[in-house]
Amino acid sequence: MTLDAALPMSKRDLLALIGRTGGAAAMYFAMSNLGQAHASPFKGVPVLDGGAKGASVLILGAGVAGLTAAYELRRAGYQVQVLEYNDKVGGRSWTLRGGDTYTELGGAVQNCGFAEGNYINPGPWRIPHNHYAIMHYCHELGVALEPFMQLNYNAYIHSSKAFDGKPQRFRHIQADFMGHVSELLVKAVKKDALADTVTKEDGEILLEALREIGALDKDFRYVTGPASSVRRGWAKGPGGGLTAEPIASEPMTFESVLRSGMWSHITDSMDTTHHTAIFQPVGGMDMIPRAFAKKVGDVVRLNSKVTAIKQDEKGVTASYVDTKTGEKLTAQADWCICTIPLSILSQIEMNVGADMAAAIGAVPYAASLKVGLEFKRRFWEQDEQIYGGITMTDLPIGQISYPSSKYGSAGPASLLGAYGFGAFAFEFTSLPPAERVARTVEWGSRIHPQYKEEFLNGIAVGWHRVPWTQGCFGQWTDEMRAEHYKNLCQIDGRIMLAGEHASYIPAWQEGGILSALDTIGRLHQRVMAG
Amino acid sequence: MTLDAALPMSKRDLLALIGRTGGAAAMYFAMSNLGQAHASPFKGVPVLDGGAKGASVLILGAGVAGLTAAYELRRAGYQVQVLEYNDKVGGRSWTLRGGDTYTELGGAVQNCGFAEGNYINPGPWRIPHNHYAIMHYCHELGVALEPFMQLNYNAYIHSSKAFDGKPQRFRHIQADFMGHVSELLVKAVKKDALADTVTKEDGEILLEALREIGALDKDFRYVTGPASSVRRGWAKGPGGGLTAEPIASEPMTFESVLRSGMWSHITDSMDTTHHTAIFQPVGGMDMIPRAFAKKVGDVVRLNSKVTAIKQDEKGVTASYVDTKTGEKLTAQADWCICTIPLSILSQIEMNVGADMAAAIGAVPYAASLKVGLEFKRRFWEQDEQIYGGITMTDLPIGQISYPSSKYGSAGPASLLGAYGFGAFAFEFTSLPPAERVARTVEWGSRIHPQYKEEFLNGIAVGWHRVPWTQGCFGQWTDEMRAEHYKNLCQIDGRIMLAGEHASYIPAWQEGGILSALDTIGRLHQRVMAG
Repeated sequence: MTLDAALPMSKRDLLALIGRTGGAAAMYFAMSNLGQAHASPFKGVPVLDGGAKGASVLILGAGVAGLTAAYELRRAGYQVQVLEYNDKVGGRSWTLRGGDTYTELGGAVQNCGFAEGNYINPGPWRIPHNHYAIMHYCHELGVALEPFMQLNYNAYIHSSKAFDGKPQRFRHIQADFMGHVSELLVKAVKKDALADTVTKEDGEILLEALREIGALDKDFRYVTGPASSVRRGWAKGPGGGLTAEPIASEPMTFESVLRSGMWSHITDSMDTTHHTAIFQPVGGMDMIPRAFAKKVGDVVRLNSKVTAIKQDEKGVTASYVDTKTGEKLTAQADWCICTIPLSILSQIEMNVGADMAAAIGAVPYAASLKVGLEFKRRFWEQDEQIYGGITMTDLPIGQISYPSSKYGSAGPASLLGAYGFGAFAFEFTSLPPAERVARTVEWGSRIHPQYKEEFLNGIAVGWHRVPWTQGCFGQWTDEMRAEHYKNLCQIDGRIMLAGEHASYIPAWQEGGILSALDTIGRLHQRVMAG
Repeated sequence: MTLDAALPMSKRDLLALIGRTGGAAAMYFAMSNLGQAHASPFKGVPVLDGGAKGASVLILGAGVAGLTAAYELRRAGYQVQVLEYNDKVGGRSWTLRGGDTYTELGGAVQNCGFAEGNYINPGPWRIPHNHYAIMHYCHELGVALEPFMQLNYNAYIHSSKAFDGKPQRFRHIQADFMGHVSELLVKAVKKDALADTVTKEDGEILLEALREIGALDKDFRYVTGPASSVRRGWAKGPGGGLTAEPIASEPMTFESVLRSGMWSHITDSMDTTHHTAIFQPVGGMDMIPRAFAKKVGDVVRLNSKVTAIKQDEKGVTASYVDTKTGEKLTAQADWCICTIPLSILSQIEMNVGADMAAAIGAVPYAASLKVGLEFKRRFWEQDEQIYGGITMTDLPIGQISYPSSKYGSAGPASLLGAYGFGAFAFEFTSLPPAERVARTVEWGSRIHPQYKEEFLNGIAVGWHRVPWTQGCFGQWTDEMRAEHYKNLCQIDGRIMLAGEHASYIPAWQEGGILSALDTIGRLHQRVMAG
């Protein structure tokens, strides 16, 4: 924290200063903050000291952005009230369990038939370790985390256009691609084709590195043998006693792997938002809003549909309807932090300036569909040795994500049977929910033939039909950002916006929380100055 | 199971047969068994039907091999008794917790000072999903599993000889190596240096694949920018509100990564025994022997040190000493399955043939050292955002493995502070335990300066000083295997051996269990034939 102020100094000056005034640990942390580590924009919760001067804040929406704002502002002494459309907090941070009922736009009702303990998260489902702000709140609020199995070498990559439509194990595609590519580069180095770029000495090191990375044999070839089988898996693994000798497996040809296009999934877990360690809350994503609710649930008014937001020089008034009673009500405060998704907010009357109004109207929302399926047993574990992880496919279902909990348990289990975007999401959601589920089972059975025999029930959430968002997340382009982003985030009179749409991390809870923290920091400065 | 008998048929014949007689699911499983999947030598527990004909079996050693044999043989109707040297079952599958006392060869006593819930596994600590036999027993015996964080992009790779001895994040080494190597191969392809190997059409696909794998920019360069930062991490990550814009990080030069030698750790999680999904039992590895003990604990005699094993035409007699009372006793049975490590067995009188005797004497045992350290707090999580995973180092401590449980919790936590082999293990274990711990803290503080401030206590297990093994695992070479392996595993009269030393998976519990299953299968055949 204390280093932030010093950052405009040169690195060298700063290190010299720390060397004089602190010990090894201080030096270490300084190094971290100077780029050795992934520097998060989260530098801890903004310090809102000096009292709130009796100011009141009306927060619209009790998703993670609104809950964060409520929690921190109240702690700093502000008078806080929150209006929430739903009958529970969380917004898109939401979990469907057996017994839950979900009614989408258009009126279709689905009852979740999952057994006790099974669930799906229709919205956010993962928490990367480098999403520091939400990690901070999980720790502070006591939300138990367990690893999300992002990468599973034994899950499949599937293409309807390659290998006769048969799913391939991730480890086969990954090892064979890396092996053949390494062998190719060895050839280039040995031909002196890269002599202008790589010195002879470095070339020698490079060959050894390629042998290691590519699992090449002593002659730098990627061929059937122990080196490649240790990487991709054996035809018959090493065992015990007199039946122990392993049998090597045969790599696929480079041509078949290259032309399959499946190499595009090798990197799925290599981007920062998917880097292990990556987590999920034990029991469902809504454990996070539930934990917030223990702190601020008393200032949240549920079942409150905002219909208009009006500000003047003295304050902000929100008109809302109690969705249970139909009663029309108003709430007032000195300031308003509005976290309502732009897809909804653009339909609500609000007197902000032209710049913010244009920004609110400019951002389209992504369509997305998630289908949760419950099966009689964990056939993916029992028959196919896939414990958690994700199978990627070019079928419209996009992916199948196996549960990252209760590994090896008996009885019914649920998985994510489809996670699709765009045209597919629109098309699929145009079908009645039961038909979406049936088609998801049909598609999935091309990868897991057991689907049809083992299927119990399913539930399908199309995000553009979710009443409280009418879309999945704000789909910014670089051009939109250049024109509208700052106008969206600035304080307009007494109104300011927060949420994933007011961040550079669309669709992630981290964006919503960081946006809320940035907003309350600026609000506090304004209050202190005013 | 039913397919095993059919395997000598040709693949094509078999598939045709299944196509005629079964549905899609049957076809699918047949495909799996024919090499689409990693074929384990574990095809289920051997069927020991037909009754045991009243035969009795004496099992020596209650590690996972002995426990497996006892469990399956008793279930098949055999009269089983087990002699175990220790005062608990498990052998090397062992966990040290606060309050435990450990006395090594030479008499040094260590008291484990860990707080409630903290532990280290001095022996096996991981269960890969493809170790099907031990996974089977975990499921059958109800041992809860949780993911072991094998790969953590935010853990370090450390070399005392590179980057001024400063630890580097795994993601930096991995992304930068892959990026630069991909860029190099792009250059070779564009020069037509590989025209003899890669067609023009495939070359085009390859370029796109390299862009993806290497996180190259639109011009196929690995340079500072969003493409590389999404992979290696940003200098300042994307955020929310008006402070949201990310700042790209600067990749290291290819030369510096290549010469650091740190690329050798990129593949640490890519070998089959380290592939995710990979697990640990919740609460410690000894949950597995404890679960076995619930089934067969009543036939295990603890505190029984075997001193001689003698067979004749009628049966086998083991002489043993009760280590608590000093009483000399014998146990008799028709057959004996001896799972005592060769390092110990070679010191025990036993009348087997020259071939098995030579095999027993031939296999040296690896030396290994593990040091568990407890600290006041999880500074690796709190300060450095390392949640589980392994930091690799060229320092004698070899690695630091962070706990894969209770992420984010407050209070003292334990980690594996050293895991070394060979000369280091011998040298380090020659020191008094307290000194081993002190030096582990000293070395580790080069990577985590917080070590010295936060250290609470530690415990150091040198495996060649563990009284019941006097070594870590059987260190076979290819030459030794060719000469001795079959002689070790054959049935010698009425005596047969089992354990990781009688397997092709040294040092892993899977080897011990598969060896036991192979052995009891052959024993049963012998009994049925006799």
